[in-house]
Amino acid sequence: MASNCSELERSIEVLVRNFYKYAEKKGKKDKMTKKEFRKMVSSELSHILTNTQSKEGADKLIKSLDADEDGKISFDEYWTLIGEIAKKLSQQISLQIQDPHQSSQPGH
Amino acid sequence: MASNCSELERSIEVLVRNFYKYAEKKGKKDKMTKKEFRKMVSSELSHILTNTQSKEGADKLIKSLDADEDGKISFDEYWTLIGEIAKKLSQQISLQIQDPHQSSQPGH
Repeated sequence: MASNCSELERSIEVLVRNFYKYAEKKGKKDKMTKKEFRKMVSSELSHILTNTQSKEGADKLIKSLDADEDGKISFDEYWTLIGEIAKKLSQQISLQIQDPHQSSQPGH
Repeated sequence: MASNCSELERSIEVLVRNFYKYAEKKGKKDKMTKKEFRKMVSSELSHILTNTQSKEGADKLIKSLDADEDGKISFDEYWTLIGEIAKKLSQQISLQIQDPHQSSQPGH
């Protein structure tokens, strides 16, 4: 990707490269093992996914994402998780924009 | 979102906030008008979506994304576009990782 790309373009690249950063460590380079996924969740999503920091919580999440039930997380399955997080955040921001007085976060 | 969040968490937030940055300008604050969408594509995705920088190209893209055919782009429809870009980039990175010698980008 061009080095002068926008913040949006860079953010997409961060999300994609984050998958391979963990997936390529062990086994198939385009799948995350359970261990790789748990490490990714605890290192990269600890402020958003507070219920999945335990092994049990992360394994439950893997089970819900693992559409082809191979016990691993593919890029598409990872992207499902990113989409769920984004849609939840979108709902929060939408509510704040529609009615700023309802916002629980004072300031901006 | 916590200010000490990870680069991944920040990237998700950038992608979500980018939608509202354009959507809230005119009309419904949770939908992008065609004009807002064209502005977003030309300002934020010009290095990735090189075929959609013309009005015609952008309008064609809107038509393909506009699942509920209301002539506007909702967050879910916007997210479909982000997902398509991410999956294309993922395929490129996956190929480079599986066979680094096939990479068309010299260096790293």
